[in-house]
Amino acid sequence: MLRTHTCGELRKKDVNKDIVLSGWVQRIRDKGGLIWIDLRDRYGITQLLLEEGHSPASLIKKARSLGREFVVKITGKVIKRIAKNPKLSTGEIEIDLTGIEILNSSKIPPFTIEDNTDGGEELRMKYRYLDLRRNPLKNSLLLRHKLSLETRKYLDGKGFVEVETPYLIKSTPEGARDFVVPSRMNQGEFYALPQSPQTFKQLLMVAGYDRYYQLVKCFRDEDLRADRQPEFTQIDCEMSFVDQEDILNTFEGMIKYLFKEIKFIDLPELARMSFDEAMQLYGTDKPDLRFGMEFKELNEVAKGKGFRVFDAAGLVVGINVKGCAGYTRKQLDKLTDFVKRPQVGAKGLVYVKYNDDGSFKSSVDKFFDQQALKSWAEFFDAQPGDLMLVLSGETNIVRKQLSELRLEMGERLKLRNPDNYKALWVVDFPLLEWDNETHRYHAMHHPFTAPKPEDVDRLENQPGSVKANAYDLVINGVEIGGGSIRIHNRDLQKRMFATLGFTEEEAQKQFGFLMNAFEYGAPPHGGIALGFDRLAAMFAGKDSIRDFIAFPKNNAGRDLMIDSPSTISNEQLDELGLKVLKKTEK
Amino acid sequence: MLRTHTCGELRKKDVNKDIVLSGWVQRIRDKGGLIWIDLRDRYGITQLLLEEGHSPASLIKKARSLGREFVVKITGKVIKRIAKNPKLSTGEIEIDLTGIEILNSSKIPPFTIEDNTDGGEELRMKYRYLDLRRNPLKNSLLLRHKLSLETRKYLDGKGFVEVETPYLIKSTPEGARDFVVPSRMNQGEFYALPQSPQTFKQLLMVAGYDRYYQLVKCFRDEDLRADRQPEFTQIDCEMSFVDQEDILNTFEGMIKYLFKEIKFIDLPELARMSFDEAMQLYGTDKPDLRFGMEFKELNEVAKGKGFRVFDAAGLVVGINVKGCAGYTRKQLDKLTDFVKRPQVGAKGLVYVKYNDDGSFKSSVDKFFDQQALKSWAEFFDAQPGDLMLVLSGETNIVRKQLSELRLEMGERLKLRNPDNYKALWVVDFPLLEWDNETHRYHAMHHPFTAPKPEDVDRLENQPGSVKANAYDLVINGVEIGGGSIRIHNRDLQKRMFATLGFTEEEAQKQFGFLMNAFEYGAPPHGGIALGFDRLAAMFAGKDSIRDFIAFPKNNAGRDLMIDSPSTISNEQLDELGLKVLKKTEK
Repeated sequence: MLRTHTCGELRKKDVNKDIVLSGWVQRIRDKGGLIWIDLRDRYGITQLLLEEGHSPASLIKKARSLGREFVVKITGKVIKRIAKNPKLSTGEIEIDLTGIEILNSSKIPPFTIEDNTDGGEELRMKYRYLDLRRNPLKNSLLLRHKLSLETRKYLDGKGFVEVETPYLIKSTPEGARDFVVPSRMNQGEFYALPQSPQTFKQLLMVAGYDRYYQLVKCFRDEDLRADRQPEFTQIDCEMSFVDQEDILNTFEGMIKYLFKEIKFIDLPELARMSFDEAMQLYGTDKPDLRFGMEFKELNEVAKGKGFRVFDAAGLVVGINVKGCAGYTRKQLDKLTDFVKRPQVGAKGLVYVKYNDDGSFKSSVDKFFDQQALKSWAEFFDAQPGDLMLVLSGETNIVRKQLSELRLEMGERLKLRNPDNYKALWVVDFPLLEWDNETHRYHAMHHPFTAPKPEDVDRLENQPGSVKANAYDLVINGVEIGGGSIRIHNRDLQKRMFATLGFTEEEAQKQFGFLMNAFEYGAPPHGGIALGFDRLAAMFAGKDSIRDFIAFPKNNAGRDLMIDSPSTISNEQLDELGLKVLKKTEK
Repeated sequence: MLRTHTCGELRKKDVNKDIVLSGWVQRIRDKGGLIWIDLRDRYGITQLLLEEGHSPASLIKKARSLGREFVVKITGKVIKRIAKNPKLSTGEIEIDLTGIEILNSSKIPPFTIEDNTDGGEELRMKYRYLDLRRNPLKNSLLLRHKLSLETRKYLDGKGFVEVETPYLIKSTPEGARDFVVPSRMNQGEFYALPQSPQTFKQLLMVAGYDRYYQLVKCFRDEDLRADRQPEFTQIDCEMSFVDQEDILNTFEGMIKYLFKEIKFIDLPELARMSFDEAMQLYGTDKPDLRFGMEFKELNEVAKGKGFRVFDAAGLVVGINVKGCAGYTRKQLDKLTDFVKRPQVGAKGLVYVKYNDDGSFKSSVDKFFDQQALKSWAEFFDAQPGDLMLVLSGETNIVRKQLSELRLEMGERLKLRNPDNYKALWVVDFPLLEWDNETHRYHAMHHPFTAPKPEDVDRLENQPGSVKANAYDLVINGVEIGGGSIRIHNRDLQKRMFATLGFTEEEAQKQFGFLMNAFEYGAPPHGGIALGFDRLAAMFAGKDSIRDFIAFPKNNAGRDLMIDSPSTISNEQLDELGLKVLKKTEK
């Protein structure tokens, strides 16, 4: 080893020891008579000291030749530090240097390797190996590592077996777009990279493995929105001989265990909320419960009073914002601008101030007198000083818009503290959702989700009314995972594919292997998948997953560091029997 | 839960308990008055009992309607078993059945779900989910799971961090053939699936992560020999500020730990052997040390005696097989046939029997008298009763041939006991090997391996003589893993690429990111990668890795179960800007 200790290891008890350290030069402070060098490695920083008159002149000269990020191996003696640094774990000691060996030099990095760097996003992506040296990224990856270890520890303790499923599988047009892999040995044919190991984990249940898990990469070739990655990691799990309750309990246990082990937080029992209730109260299936502002539906008191906008709306719905009656005209205009942004898409915003003197001031005073507005306030359970914000429109659309406004208000009022964790299960999802574009039903989770037994009869005639034993784990307004009880009966699976518009041939070609498997003793089973990148970010109180992935891609799906994707040789294309079309050929 | 206990859980202490079990019907024995059902799940088998006159008639009727592999949930009471079955962990009890619920029926499986099945390879691949129900496969996957847990436990304890590296990377023509992934967002460009995370783990060292590991899938698009898979799993590791000795010690520790934890075997200190010595003594860089039969080189005593075959050979070399002087003509002919097989490729085999009476009988008596053969025997340290087997030819070729013969003799004499483990390090590999086809040097391990410092000067002028700090872990004649100290200096890496025949542009295009990284303070580093599938098979004493992979592909790279690869739609091809060429178009 090129060291006796790491740079995060030495303490007062080590004083007088002769040591060898290796690491990177973080900083040099040259005060003439005294030179301090901060030496850094993964484990910490140790201060090295040189003193004119005490240290050899040649060593001082060598020290002065060092630059930031040089890699050195040093020898020296541990001494007590006069000015202790309580921020450093090694802050009680420093090293009286006796030797420096330069293991590698460094050009000046294109950005500073500090907690707050001066490097822009693109530059840091290109030099990811330097960005990864910074504490925030290092801590993110170490947290991720700990999270994976603890996840495995929990699941192993519960009798789950990690089984690796294949990456070269089969393309199915259902769901998102697949990445495909041309086969050289079977020309004209392609593998696909898995969007999830869904069918394989179900086959493992058919095979009797009882409890499966895997921390596994999944792939989706989607146009990348901010903070989506073409490859991402899932905690993928499946259990046999269980009902929904068993799965919720098992993974509620896991989440609590992880919060306890990693954040030292005792998470209380998770709330459960039906999909319908979540939509009605928060306008979303992933409500942020760190704050209230539940929706109140106002049709009863707001419609039929001559205000055409309301009268034409399917739903008039609002939130009550505590203590914001004092909002200025400018502030209210900004909120109106917010809801009118194309991402939100409302036509306008109605407000009602409940003044401290008990009077009301609203943007619809023309249509609603003080008495009418008082009845709104009662609906909202509002108090003097509160601000009621109301939107109207088609039910599903207006709920979504108001959800955005609610989150925005939560943000403005600092009610969304990342260190406050509110987790819940959203349950009783619809099995299907209608797609206006393709004019057919899509599976809300995926085509393997079982309808609730009491709803099965309606699968063909009222498919939209069928609920599923499907559930999402939501923390602080983010969907961390989701799952369901699966179909384990061939006939039901066939009916499901038919409802989704598959012909029998299509269903057989794509999923015949699974339906065949169901004929050989498939047990009742169900499972869940959690987004691991997202979970890691959540545990660090961060919104973006990018810092929790060692080598992420940008929004164009490019790895700027290795400059990929890239062209391949004609020999490679020939071997694959493929031709790349020029844009004009298409 | 659809059970109170698993099928492997109930013991004598549970007698009189009312229980619920779920599982598969393994076997029904109907003796008229008594019916026994073996109920199976992942955890074991529990015997269920029905008795005419005691059990309800309707229940007996239902039991008689069950078939093999039906999935049932049963209720009953635990009772003491009269005829105990010591082979079963539940063999002291059975269940007095009170209820049967059929959860799913099963068609008759296409092969028997028994330890020794009647199903052929192809059938079992197609119905992999049924094959996986059999104990041998289940135990293989459970062993693999345990191995991964213990591997992580060891490495975590040594301060290694698991970091996930990307699967969508960049194609490089060096090494084996890449699987490529067309990019839709960057048309005409491709990602490649990693053959190993080599460059990424080195970048993690540049980034200061100090100790990295990952259990990771790797991909190689090679024509599949028996027991090769296009996707396979590696234990991939890298360390900074180390020399070769540190790496060998760390991973010798890991192997010993795994043998201890999983096999309860105390592995002795690993032997170390140089590549040159391994080639000289065993004709291979992965010697099986479970038995001796070291090579003896006979040029000195065998050449120049008028036997043209020997005189024309670069090397005359043989092994001494203890106690086999009694081999018949027929047995010797079979050995000759063996070495003449195209896979071995020798022209013939020379034998010398050292008879019990001290005389010699050889296939070259014409050229070598008793005195000459006695001098051979002295070379071989042979005793009366031994059989000397000698091959001759071009040095490297004949060594390879004799290695095959040595292994064959070890096999015949049952010296290759799978429960006997002999592990060693093969070290001091050549940096490069000459390729007669392409007329250039190839990297023996990969182009990132560092030459030994004392050999660096010869890189350009005598590249073939340069040794590397590269090492392989070999157990029982199988290469389980290999690694090296890496280049961490940009200039040396450039020289290495030049030696391998890269133009500067090619090197820059493919590996510029790595060489750039080396300019920003790259630490000395090195690592190793172990074949995880192979390791698991080794721990089970098995030769084939296929049973240690849940869903393997066949030799044509096909998954027979899901029928993949398969054609994709024209829409998919259009979106990717690709055209599949008909065979005639090429």
